[in-house]
Amino acid sequence: MIKAGIIGSTGYAGAELVRLLLQHPEAEIVWYGSRSYVDQNYADIYHNMFRLVDAKCMDEDMERLSKEADVIFTATPQGFCASMVNDTILNSSKIIDLSADFRLKKIDVYERWYKLEHKAPQYLKEAVYGLCEINRDRIRGARIVANPGCYTTTSILTLYPLVKEGLIDDSSIIIDAKSGTSGAGRGAKIPNLFCEVNESIKPYGVATHRHTPEIEEQLSYAAGLDYMDGESILINFTPHLVPMNRGILATCYANLRDGVTADDITAAYRKYYAEETFIRLLGNGNFPETRWVEGSNFVDIGFTVDPRTKRVIAAGALDNLVKGAAGQAVQNMNLLFGLPEDTGLKLVPVFP
Amino acid sequence: MIKAGIIGSTGYAGAELVRLLLQHPEAEIVWYGSRSYVDQNYADIYHNMFRLVDAKCMDEDMERLSKEADVIFTATPQGFCASMVNDTILNSSKIIDLSADFRLKKIDVYERWYKLEHKAPQYLKEAVYGLCEINRDRIRGARIVANPGCYTTTSILTLYPLVKEGLIDDSSIIIDAKSGTSGAGRGAKIPNLFCEVNESIKPYGVATHRHTPEIEEQLSYAAGLDYMDGESILINFTPHLVPMNRGILATCYANLRDGVTADDITAAYRKYYAEETFIRLLGNGNFPETRWVEGSNFVDIGFTVDPRTKRVIAAGALDNLVKGAAGQAVQNMNLLFGLPEDTGLKLVPVFP
Amino acid sequence: MIKAGIIGSTGYAGAELVRLLLQHPEAEIVWYGSRSYVDQNYADIYHNMFRLVDAKCMDEDMERLSKEADVIFTATPQGFCASMVNDTILNSSKIIDLSADFRLKKIDVYERWYKLEHKAPQYLKEAVYGLCEINRDRIRGARIVANPGCYTTTSILTLYPLVKEGLIDDSSIIIDAKSGTSGAGRGAKIPNLFCEVNESIKPYGVATHRHTPEIEEQLSYAAGLDYMDGESILINFTPHLVPMNRGILATCYANLRDGVTADDITAAYRKYYAEETFIRLLGNGNFPETRWVEGSNFVDIGFTVDPRTKRVIAAGALDNLVKGAAGQAVQNMNLLFGLPEDTGLKLVPVFP
Amino acid sequence: MIKAGIIGSTGYAGAELVRLLLQHPEAEIVWYGSRSYVDQNYADIYHNMFRLVDAKCMDEDMERLSKEADVIFTATPQGFCASMVNDTILNSSKIIDLSADFRLKKIDVYERWYKLEHKAPQYLKEAVYGLCEINRDRIRGARIVANPGCYTTTSILTLYPLVKEGLIDDSSIIIDAKSGTSGAGRGAKIPNLFCEVNESIKPYGVATHRHTPEIEEQLSYAAGLDYMDGESILINFTPHLVPMNRGILATCYANLRDGVTADDITAAYRKYYAEETFIRLLGNGNFPETRWVEGSNFVDIGFTVDPRTKRVIAAGALDNLVKGAAGQAVQNMNLLFGLPEDTGLKLVPVFP
Repeated sequence: MIKAGIIGSTGYAGAELVRLLLQHPEAEIVWYGSRSYVDQNYADIYHNMFRLVDAKCMDEDMERLSKEADVIFTATPQGFCASMVNDTILNSSKIIDLSADFRLKKIDVYERWYKLEHKAPQYLKEAVYGLCEINRDRIRGARIVANPGCYTTTSILTLYPLVKEGLIDDSSIIIDAKSGTSGAGRGAKIPNLFCEVNESIKPYGVATHRHTPEIEEQLSYAAGLDYMDGESILINFTPHLVPMNRGILATCYANLRDGVTADDITAAYRKYYAEETFIRLLGNGNFPETRWVEGSNFVDIGFTVDPRTKRVIAAGALDNLVKGAAGQAVQNMNLLFGLPEDTGLKLVPVFP
Repeated sequence: MIKAGIIGSTGYAGAELVRLLLQHPEAEIVWYGSRSYVDQNYADIYHNMFRLVDAKCMDEDMERLSKEADVIFTATPQGFCASMVNDTILNSSKIIDLSADFRLKKIDVYERWYKLEHKAPQYLKEAVYGLCEINRDRIRGARIVANPGCYTTTSILTLYPLVKEGLIDDSSIIIDAKSGTSGAGRGAKIPNLFCEVNESIKPYGVATHRHTPEIEEQLSYAAGLDYMDGESILINFTPHLVPMNRGILATCYANLRDGVTADDITAAYRKYYAEETFIRLLGNGNFPETRWVEGSNFVDIGFTVDPRTKRVIAAGALDNLVKGAAGQAVQNMNLLFGLPEDTGLKLVPVFP
Repeated sequence: MIKAGIIGSTGYAGAELVRLLLQHPEAEIVWYGSRSYVDQNYADIYHNMFRLVDAKCMDEDMERLSKEADVIFTATPQGFCASMVNDTILNSSKIIDLSADFRLKKIDVYERWYKLEHKAPQYLKEAVYGLCEINRDRIRGARIVANPGCYTTTSILTLYPLVKEGLIDDSSIIIDAKSGTSGAGRGAKIPNLFCEVNESIKPYGVATHRHTPEIEEQLSYAAGLDYMDGESILINFTPHLVPMNRGILATCYANLRDGVTADDITAAYRKYYAEETFIRLLGNGNFPETRWVEGSNFVDIGFTVDPRTKRVIAAGALDNLVKGAAGQAVQNMNLLFGLPEDTGLKLVPVFP
Repeated sequence: MIKAGIIGSTGYAGAELVRLLLQHPEAEIVWYGSRSYVDQNYADIYHNMFRLVDAKCMDEDMERLSKEADVIFTATPQGFCASMVNDTILNSSKIIDLSADFRLKKIDVYERWYKLEHKAPQYLKEAVYGLCEINRDRIRGARIVANPGCYTTTSILTLYPLVKEGLIDDSSIIIDAKSGTSGAGRGAKIPNLFCEVNESIKPYGVATHRHTPEIEEQLSYAAGLDYMDGESILINFTPHLVPMNRGILATCYANLRDGVTADDITAAYRKYYAEETFIRLLGNGNFPETRWVEGSNFVDIGFTVDPRTKRVIAAGALDNLVKGAAGQAVQNMNLLFGLPEDTGLKLVPVFP
């Protein structure tokens, strides 16, 4: 059994990790870390876990935890993991970091978009970006996996084959994304109150959202650009808050390169994803809806070509807490420990 | 492997059966019956099943189905199962009927509340009321299991120990219940449109809802009354429609018999449910919330005693599609086939 | 023009007062009080008021405000109004208090249920309980109007004619109430986050909710009891939180006195409410739904008699922010200033 | 008093017209037309109108209606108005058509996008596109006003100043729009059931939605193109269904022409909208949210410039049933009858 510790287990992503690991046949949770609820019963914070979890919340002592756990999940605010990680920890335990600390390879980009000093730049190079479908082989040997953001997973997986195969004008990419409210976390803030979110939709972080450079970096690699040397795709990314608990939809627009057809698009998606367990290709003319993936680790992707404007409109949908966070983290754990990738993740979407 | 057939697989309860049976280690679905969608791909009706179910919808030929299946689930409108069942079928296959056809033992009560002639009264006596926690032993040997209604499961389980132990005045029972909208089914009706349900709560079927006699009959048995001979507890039962997908909450009121204390209530709940896998007793002063059971087979029960009015207020919560329908049906299947009762039902509640 | 000041104008009830007073032909707002947002633009807190309100938030200096305003609305936490009110203020301005400070006539009841010392018991006797349909005449001459609670307005108006006419057993009253989330206020608390409220229903404050004694006191007066001398109706009142913004539904149960018929109930409702502008009687067998009153000052009331249990089930529905708070406060203001009661309140319910 | 008749008064847009006209000081409704509910009490279909509307639903006899009404609103499916309108009607009554029949000036475009033969092409030329802020002067003298679509009102008003002033590359426009579910109408269809819409977001009609040519035509006029002669802006328009009752948000993307700055954008918006009653300019860096306009006739518009990609992202929000349908229709009526444009439309947004 893999011994897993979670720091930040009382946030929504952390709680979803608990749900998934409880159903994982090869893992057990040995540490329910929580800054806010130390010494309280975990099931008193999340009553759905009553009779399923009989443990108290622990502190965030990552070094001590590394002695007890084979893998540490950090579902914590930006900056935490970078400020804690060291070789002692890494010699005892793998780290799967659900924050952004090790997602961006360029320190200046991190510091500019996150307004934070990076405390562990020495690990940036070895950390592997944990988008399993793209980086599978490198993840297996990693010590630190940077688990991708929810918006970024949706956006990158939707656009990757198109960029990789050179089917679209990389300078024309626009991503209009929509997320359920669990993505905003469990912090007690007025904008996240029921009455503020319900019966409304709003854009936020327009042209400034921090998932932007993460998408740009990964798509730049796909395009074969020398990102570290300053080459980069630039995109527009606009997230919106939707009055629902779970789900992300990314509607992506791009100009087609001359002569590219819908069949080319279909072929590109098939080339990269036909064998993927967690990516469901809906095909030309079909579009995903978040209700069909809720509770599962699936990403549904569909598209259409508009012959009038010569653009492709492609969209991806996933559950932001599963494939967008905890599910992908477990998928990464499976890779790290040599398990079949879908172990503990054969989740049938819950509808309605 | 148990071969299972579902008639009515494209309603919400039927679709939930599909979800649960797909995750059941000892069962496989051999028949996706659907009156409305014969010959269509099941996954075209429920896109969440894309790549998980590769089957077309079948008709409702129960006799043919009985030759292919070990167990038939009928998630159909009232009257269907009674009009179809016969000895040929029952000699080949078990039936778990999710409709009301075999729940009420008295034909006149059935016909009065359901405004339907009963087409198979000859099986009424042998059919077993499938409330597993109460009727476990009799279910094991049954040919026909009458799977309880969603409201009734919640209400009966909440009140059973209090009635059985004689702690309350049986003539004082009032059940005020609230249900998510999936309980109304997938029929295309104006009152179930999003804009009609959203941002509203309403009572319906007040003093006339058909789950009333089902609750009365079962509680009468618990009270030791000779129900078949005309003795019966009478209750008030008022359902309400709540703008959410899943979940039932039954808030129950009753006058305490003289001298009954909160400790007596606690003891009664423990006596009957302490060992139950799917009943979680929250204890005195705690109340259930539907969010904590969503997606799982749990029933959460809590209560308080009001010393001012000498009443007990007890409440139960469950997921109407799981413990209130498909989950309980699978639990019954497990009993029928000698499997551990929680096989395929170790579902961790999904939150948020 | 009536000059109106609002203390607590940035809570939901206060904001609804702003909405209503802006549309009131005989009133203008001269003071937008707010503890949390002093000196900030009101329209920066409530963007719906952009270009409609050009004022900054003021402090809570009630004495100064009383010099500028003809009427002061206190939409503030319990204890505030009682701690501030004095004769100087009352000589300059009327007070309509939306908190509970002057609703309960017995200090010990207030202090027991609210766990607060009452700071102005000297005004308790003269303050008038502002349930317009019942206390209209006394309200006109009041200096302090105690604006009723949202649950209590619904509950009392639904039950008043039945108690007043002696049609029900007063010891048998059970009120099962359901409220939208705006009733919980705009405080940043985890239980009120979107993801916590959405897709769930829960009871709360069972047997302890503070609107209980308020309902009991008013119904006791209706029953002709000597409440101040210790006589009282005792009820059970159970509120539930519903995932919607606005709306309260109170489902009320009571045993009928011998021989009482549905026609008697109808006659009682007609006797007291037939001429009421804001009470809509739906009649025997019809039940209210909160969607039909949203945004308006209406209370919809319906009922049925269950001949099996000899109980009446009656239900009332209103918009908790309008008739349950701000609308009723404006109705009280109209009474205080000799205006037609529906001035500024001819609001057509908004649906969907 | 203006005598108004409504054909299609039992759809959501028709019902909103009823709500607005009931509160309009210079209009009265003389005809509640409804194909589905002839001879039924209007208030039995829309219970919110109980005691406010005492009328039965009438048929769709437009000629008879034209004799009784000064203005006829047709809130009907596409094709109805065109099939009915004639000179007899137009000599008696003005028509404000909420369908698409007279919005598109080119018959072939109408027939291609709507898959309908146009039955009254002879009126296409004289019908005026009723976007009040743009076409005010021409509307005043019209006999037929083509009331704009909900998505189109939002999209055109957001983009009009930018196109008109030549600030953006017209070939680069992408509109990603999101709508509440009332926009889908009150038809009883499975995709509009509560459980299908709730907890999900989906794109639909991608690259094929019928509001596309309407936006293109109007923006082409703004750009000074000879639209009737075949010149046209081409856009991408993608609508999404959001789990909320009301509200439309259009997030618009376009490449800036060389040298265009945020100040230029601000100046353009001010130039066209600074004096507009119903357009609220939020300014650079601010974005609208549908909750702030609900129930009102406001359009809120904000934008930002992304210096990295040299694009402007502008967004507009409105209530699809008010400014997107019934409110704009009333605004048009006011123009037709020489009333101040905001008569009956001084609606304060309802929040929460």
